[in-house]
Amino acid sequence: PLCFLQGILERLDAGEIVIGDGGFVFALEKRGYVKAGPWTPEATVEHPEAVRQLHREFLRAGSNVLQTFTFYASEDKLENRGNYVAEKISCNKVNEAACDIAREVANEGDALVAGGVSQTPSYLSCKDKTEVKAVFQKQLEVFMKKNVDFLIAEYFEHVEEAVWAVEVLKQSGKPVAATMCIGPEGDMHGVPPGQCAVQLVKAGASIVGVNCHFDPETSIETVRLMKEGLQAAKLKAHLMCQPLAFHTPDCGKQGFIDLPEFPFGLEPRIATRWDIQKYARKAYDLGIRFIGGCCGFEPYHIRAIAEELAPERGFLPEASEKHGSWGDNLSMHTKPWVRARARKEYWENLKPASGRPYCPCMSKPDGWGVTKGAKELMQQKEATTEQQLKELFQKK
Amino acid sequence: PLCFLQGILERLDAGEIVIGDGGFVFALEKRGYVKAGPWTPEATVEHPEAVRQLHREFLRAGSNVLQTFTFYASEDKLENRGNYVAEKISCNKVNEAACDIAREVANEGDALVAGGVSQTPSYLSCKDKTEVKAVFQKQLEVFMKKNVDFLIAEYFEHVEEAVWAVEVLKQSGKPVAATMCIGPEGDMHGVPPGQCAVQLVKAGASIVGVNCHFDPETSIETVRLMKEGLQAAKLKAHLMCQPLAFHTPDCGKQGFIDLPEFPFGLEPRIATRWDIQKYARKAYDLGIRFIGGCCGFEPYHIRAIAEELAPERGFLPEASEKHGSWGDNLSMHTKPWVRARARKEYWENLKPASGRPYCPCMSKPDGWGVTKGAKELMQQKEATTEQQLKELFQKK
Amino acid sequence: PLCFLQGILERLDAGEIVIGDGGFVFALEKRGYVKAGPWTPEATVEHPEAVRQLHREFLRAGSNVLQTFTFYASEDKLENRGNYVAEKISCNKVNEAACDIAREVANEGDALVAGGVSQTPSYLSCKDKTEVKAVFQKQLEVFMKKNVDFLIAEYFEHVEEAVWAVEVLKQSGKPVAATMCIGPEGDMHGVPPGQCAVQLVKAGASIVGVNCHFDPETSIETVRLMKEGLQAAKLKAHLMCQPLAFHTPDCGKQGFIDLPEFPFGLEPRIATRWDIQKYARKAYDLGIRFIGGCCGFEPYHIRAIAEELAPERGFLPEASEKHGSWGDNLSMHTKPWVRARARKEYWENLKPASGRPYCPCMSKPDGWGVTKGAKELMQQKEATTEQQLKELFQKK
Amino acid sequence: PLCFLQGILERLDAGEIVIGDGGFVFALEKRGYVKAGPWTPEATVEHPEAVRQLHREFLRAGSNVLQTFTFYASEDKLENRGNYVAEKISCNKVNEAACDIAREVANEGDALVAGGVSQTPSYLSCKDKTEVKAVFQKQLEVFMKKNVDFLIAEYFEHVEEAVWAVEVLKQSGKPVAATMCIGPEGDMHGVPPGQCAVQLVKAGASIVGVNCHFDPETSIETVRLMKEGLQAAKLKAHLMCQPLAFHTPDCGKQGFIDLPEFPFGLEPRIATRWDIQKYARKAYDLGIRFIGGCCGFEPYHIRAIAEELAPERGFLPEASEKHGSWGDNLSMHTKPWVRARARKEYWENLKPASGRPYCPCMSKPDGWGVTKGAKELMQQKEATTEQQLKELFQKK
Repeated sequence: PLCFLQGILERLDAGEIVIGDGGFVFALEKRGYVKAGPWTPEATVEHPEAVRQLHREFLRAGSNVLQTFTFYASEDKLENRGNYVAEKISCNKVNEAACDIAREVANEGDALVAGGVSQTPSYLSCKDKTEVKAVFQKQLEVFMKKNVDFLIAEYFEHVEEAVWAVEVLKQSGKPVAATMCIGPEGDMHGVPPGQCAVQLVKAGASIVGVNCHFDPETSIETVRLMKEGLQAAKLKAHLMCQPLAFHTPDCGKQGFIDLPEFPFGLEPRIATRWDIQKYARKAYDLGIRFIGGCCGFEPYHIRAIAEELAPERGFLPEASEKHGSWGDNLSMHTKPWVRARARKEYWENLKPASGRPYCPCMSKPDGWGVTKGAKELMQQKEATTEQQLKELFQKK
Repeated sequence: PLCFLQGILERLDAGEIVIGDGGFVFALEKRGYVKAGPWTPEATVEHPEAVRQLHREFLRAGSNVLQTFTFYASEDKLENRGNYVAEKISCNKVNEAACDIAREVANEGDALVAGGVSQTPSYLSCKDKTEVKAVFQKQLEVFMKKNVDFLIAEYFEHVEEAVWAVEVLKQSGKPVAATMCIGPEGDMHGVPPGQCAVQLVKAGASIVGVNCHFDPETSIETVRLMKEGLQAAKLKAHLMCQPLAFHTPDCGKQGFIDLPEFPFGLEPRIATRWDIQKYARKAYDLGIRFIGGCCGFEPYHIRAIAEELAPERGFLPEASEKHGSWGDNLSMHTKPWVRARARKEYWENLKPASGRPYCPCMSKPDGWGVTKGAKELMQQKEATTEQQLKELFQKK
Repeated sequence: PLCFLQGILERLDAGEIVIGDGGFVFALEKRGYVKAGPWTPEATVEHPEAVRQLHREFLRAGSNVLQTFTFYASEDKLENRGNYVAEKISCNKVNEAACDIAREVANEGDALVAGGVSQTPSYLSCKDKTEVKAVFQKQLEVFMKKNVDFLIAEYFEHVEEAVWAVEVLKQSGKPVAATMCIGPEGDMHGVPPGQCAVQLVKAGASIVGVNCHFDPETSIETVRLMKEGLQAAKLKAHLMCQPLAFHTPDCGKQGFIDLPEFPFGLEPRIATRWDIQKYARKAYDLGIRFIGGCCGFEPYHIRAIAEELAPERGFLPEASEKHGSWGDNLSMHTKPWVRARARKEYWENLKPASGRPYCPCMSKPDGWGVTKGAKELMQQKEATTEQQLKELFQKK
Repeated sequence: PLCFLQGILERLDAGEIVIGDGGFVFALEKRGYVKAGPWTPEATVEHPEAVRQLHREFLRAGSNVLQTFTFYASEDKLENRGNYVAEKISCNKVNEAACDIAREVANEGDALVAGGVSQTPSYLSCKDKTEVKAVFQKQLEVFMKKNVDFLIAEYFEHVEEAVWAVEVLKQSGKPVAATMCIGPEGDMHGVPPGQCAVQLVKAGASIVGVNCHFDPETSIETVRLMKEGLQAAKLKAHLMCQPLAFHTPDCGKQGFIDLPEFPFGLEPRIATRWDIQKYARKAYDLGIRFIGGCCGFEPYHIRAIAEELAPERGFLPEASEKHGSWGDNLSMHTKPWVRARARKEYWENLKPASGRPYCPCMSKPDGWGVTKGAKELMQQKEATTEQQLKELFQKK
């Protein structure tokens, strides 16, 4: 591989393809280090070797950006979920460890370290702008101390909060990327993707796009709408996409969380490496140059992006030494009908069976025990402390 | 957890449940360290940290047995596949490293180390009994030198070769387990499961069962037939099951390899943790006490076995600190309809959708370009060197 | 049943529910009297007993309107398709026989006779307004001679042609209904449903809506858009819906014709009687009062409409003497588990299996060998004689 | 078509293919003349024109045998179900009308009339042999008076009762065919298909096979087992098959009645005409020469048999004048991509989608509220009057 020495914007400005990494909370949940529900990253302190190994696998798979494992690591979130953590680990400690691990692995190869912040309970509980910004500020201080290469504000359902995050991060002087976990219908207050993009760029983001909540196809459509919005407003920004590695044609405005299979029955929806190659190609064709993944993306999915775009980039990732393009390593299989699978047309056209004839293909998104009014209320900031929720909704 | 100090037979004889580990070649292929097709384990030398981490995750998930990552590590296989290995790594080096890594991790917890051998190209190429046994003997020498706790002969399609393997391993004086990768129709020469079990026990195996090639339901049925065969022959042995974590109701006699999705499109077939809990319960109910997994089993699948059988065993595995039983950690989710999923009935009864409405539920097993006669020939020993195969079958 | 003596508008103006009939070409194709492809109704002359019997079944099932079987019975269409008819049967003869049969059966019960015209090859071949209107005029003369009760212009893909048809029919002084075979995306020239409805009402239609091409759910959505268009234009008209009895969530702008299963593989998509009850309820709730069906609707589907709306109407159709509501006639079945199906909740919630595990749930609409440009051209009037088509498109 | 003048055995002995008819109770239920649940044929008296029309359609489609519509027309069954019949119609009257209608239509073409008897409530209520035989005797008297061409004992779940029926019918001197509604697992007392066939032939049946309860593929397998049984016993008989036109890969020993979709949700399982052509070919290849259908078979399904076997027979049925082989009548469709469907390969290989992404592909057979013991009891003769059933089983 070529040796990149430049920063994220130099790369993107030069027209390079930058490959992101995959989904830490889902991958580490399956490995036994993260608890579904809270999804907090205290593993950076508790089991650094597991976090380090996953970073390494993504690096090997072709990631040019290692995101610090600081998802939901804001102080208010950690406190809110604190009961799940055996011994209280300080917010700073979690964030600092995340930065150290990411930098250690990034130094093993060609990767930048990105410090990440995400939406906060403070915003959902209607804390004011100052209070919410203070939460981001606290994380930013760690990122500055640890000198990350750039910053990502990701996983925001409300553009208002995302703008606040960008404003805080922007003060650092480092490049800022911003991705929202929204679909083509827009944010939870109804702001369409094009307008979200415009607001984020105006707030200072150099790179905008989406992450999580929707499958690759839907996410590309959302970024397309963002691109249109920016063009209409005559604004320029780089585009970014980090979708789920789950097929979710059936989800509603709030994405995969409302699907009945979330989070413990999503297996039949997992994308194959060939699905991801199609995604990488479509993303590239739309002009997206920061291409990665979120929940469900395992190292081999990231490798699939790198392999699909190898002709454009001129090189393969390290992990391709253990992978033949389009299954060509099957050509030595002992069974001739398996050898016949060693070709692009085979995998490109395969319609993989689920092996589950008693299960359906699609689900209706859930809203269990929730009236429409209450659901909308939920999506507002008003109804959001655990206590308030408990009062608003009663299990049958 | 309790501290076990005894060997595998002491445990099983005492009625304990022993939990196996999961599938190394599939898990490490996705992590970027094993090449699909050859499926050989040179990663023990090339990337020991990745192998070590996977062992650790299984240990944390509840595995009581760590199998040395020596699948397809016989000298003839490594040579046969040698062109995939950048620098030739000696067979002994691969096997020794595998033993060292497994022991290192086993010492971190309550686990035994099992040295494993599997079917050989020598047998398929019609080498005679002496030659085939010599291949196993070579691996056994490493296992003896490294003093593994017991031995497993696994992944055999022909009981004849499995018996030879058991005979070799038995000389060591260590306990021997033997599992075949067959379904209810029996081995590739048509020997039914009951007879396979009888032959293996007569050859010296103390534990018999199946691994790989079929889904949990089918594999349990095969072990049931083995149990019946042993009962009819008035033989006693412990039962063992290490199936796929893929749903394969549609596969034929040769298992998942013939499915069109093998090996790069199996994602929609991946078992959920709840599927695995059902498997663990059924296996237990049949009297199987060595319960693990093979290809597709990730650490969280092994944890599911340990959680399902926690009432019988009296303890949970370490990784359950990051997992609520039956999703109970969702009870704090911000959305009430997600909180409603925090209960056993929900996950037990969920029929997970594939999200793939353009794909079927089942596939016809493949036999591309292969006449029935040729297919049978393939299953015999006669038609098996790569050269012979190339002559027999021509791609269109 | 009550005895209706009034005309269609008196009934609708009085708030009555009027039940249409089902699909003649599909039902008679399966019975052996209509040829798929041409879909022309010469059976009125060749096999009047078969047409009469089908009318009777719909009458018994609850139809209040018997449509003359004059679909595609315009002179230009019959000529265009003439090669399929053994002996040339004159257009007038087909239309007259259709009127006689419908009237004969209508007199056996409480039903009106509606004379129907549908889109013409003349329009598609770019004949001018005068020529196209002449085609409708010729059919209208038969309807006037035979004194049908009212007129329906149905199955139009272009609102322009539908308006011309309404203008011709309106001269008769009889009430005119008009339905287009479009979905929510509008007509083939891109006119949205709301505008189509406005144009049709302005041209003189008293009843507007959709028929054919889409499933009940989609068709109701299209009528909803028509209703909105009329409200915005402050126009009043009765609403009508006669959809397919096939599930077609996967079809594109042109409806079920583009689905790969059309017309000989649609069986797995056939609606159950319970699906139709849901449709009847939804249609009623939207304010649609002329509720019937098109292709795929068999007599039992029409009965399902009549049974669902029996509470509102106060009576059941004759054929309900052979049908218990919600399966209650199963209560005497010899098997108790079948008796347990004799209840509304059972059938309402059943998710019927296809019994086809090797088939997908949805299809991609077809456009075989057709470039996008050519497809659009096809949808214009320009490219439409058989000769032109042959030149434009070449099979591979 | 050729003119056949011979009887059923002359035809079969000469090696001719005899095409049966389709399912009357299902077809007439959908047309509004038969009540699901009781499934009794009083329509022969109440609505003879509807029965006559259906016979005509089957004749036109190619049926060489018109079965009298006397299914469940035994005196005990009609009485048992009498509450459903508005005015009590005598058993004799129903049977006589059935014979008259069938003969009237048979005379319009080349068809034989077969008088049919089926299993009785008397047998299920443990009446003795004399009593049960008296029931068949009563129907036979009508068949003799009306001089049907031959006799069919069909739809028997217990070979014992079928043998009694054959013994009664055999006294007439007319040829007797016997079909059971069983699958490969055999009759409800566990007698395997081969033995059933042997007993029926020994009792006097010249033609044996299966009808109803299972799909074509399963039914052919059952007939194959019957053929093997006869060969092993060195008995000769003609083979016959009249399966469902529903896909039922998921049903258990008792066939489609136990599927949750029976009888009002079977639509997605309906066979296409191409499925039936495959069935006809497979049946022919096994040596079956009396090939027809049962529940779900509509006239176009029977035509599909006649078209598939036209090369062997040398002629097409009358209704083929309205049907091009393999869709060739689509070659004049206005849309070129629909014209591209006018070929055998297209329809042969189509995997038709269900249009129901929220439904599964297979169902678990039902046994609602029924313990295994009770289910077995049900299958015995002991537990069978309505009163007894009511006592045995309680709805939840």
